[in-house]
Amino acid sequence: MGRWEPDARDRLVRAALDLFDEQGYENTAVAQIAERAGLTKSTYFRHFRDKREVLFGGQDELVELLVAGIAGTPESAGPLAAVEGALVAIAVTFTEERRANGPRRLAVIAANDELRERDAMKMAGFSSVMQEALRRRGVPELDAAVAVELGVVALRVAYGRWLEAGGDFAEVARRALDEVRIVAAALEGAE
Amino acid sequence: MGRWEPDARDRLVRAALDLFDEQGYENTAVAQIAERAGLTKSTYFRHFRDKREVLFGGQDELVELLVAGIAGTPESAGPLAAVEGALVAIAVTFTEERRANGPRRLAVIAANDELRERDAMKMAGFSSVMQEALRRRGVPELDAAVAVELGVVALRVAYGRWLEAGGDFAEVARRALDEVRIVAAALEGAE
Repeated sequence: MGRWEPDARDRLVRAALDLFDEQGYENTAVAQIAERAGLTKSTYFRHFRDKREVLFGGQDELVELLVAGIAGTPESAGPLAAVEGALVAIAVTFTEERRANGPRRLAVIAANDELRERDAMKMAGFSSVMQEALRRRGVPELDAAVAVELGVVALRVAYGRWLEAGGDFAEVARRALDEVRIVAAALEGAE
Repeated sequence: MGRWEPDARDRLVRAALDLFDEQGYENTAVAQIAERAGLTKSTYFRHFRDKREVLFGGQDELVELLVAGIAGTPESAGPLAAVEGALVAIAVTFTEERRANGPRRLAVIAANDELRERDAMKMAGFSSVMQEALRRRGVPELDAAVAVELGVVALRVAYGRWLEAGGDFAEVARRALDEVRIVAAALEGAE
């Protein structure tokens, strides 16, 4: 078990989702997840900080990609184009494996208050990281907040469509953000 | 203590914030909060479900007001005008007492992961309740999501300004939403 396990992470996620299905999230211990995956508990903790992280892992990588996507957009581009760069940058993480696990993962989270809070916090974290990246490009605070929250709406829409129909996530995200932008531009205020 | 305590809720919030300041959120028990407020533990639990709710209480009332604010906007009004109705409807809860406690409350939440997750979840809950209320008026899903998230940006901006400078929250919120709408309308997409 001490040897390198190239697909340890995926195996742990699959084992965890199987066990959460069979006996519930609350009734499953990290040791059981590791055992089901044919790995040790210490391998588990090399990949995930605690039990719930098996559902939220890869967050640091996503944050890095979002920030790099914004930084990689030409300085002349507006904040929404930079947000599009961020969404396109994370497309590499939207693998078939992730898509296959998606619906079960969402079902486990939806059924547990603590996990739903963790999920809300994760999205809030992405949002604040992207806003900071835009502020560093000189985008005014309110513009950054608006562009990022529209990006988050597009991300949610794109994720749902991609889970359902698959395809290239970058393309799905681009289309969703474009629809969001058109809707936002057409909104009327009160008289 | 069995008698009616007209300001029990405010006293409990103030006592809790004092104790969280003095000894930290983690080191404070509900019994201590009640004692400091000169009330019983059972009075505490009539007002708040658990320790952290003393920081998030009044959420049900806010949800009712947000929904009523949307329902009370003329059917002919667009989704953003309905969201404005929601923000104006919650203005009654933005009292001087709440403003005085605001900065300490935010500091306690910011210092604790569990509380930050709870806070993110609370905002996500407001967002989903408003989106449902718009959907019931026949607003398409994407339009509802965009209008509500812009409303949430405006709510955050308005809350910060109101904590700093006071004033009529309804007016502060209206102005913030108007600025958000103008920024959103001006955002350019990628080429």
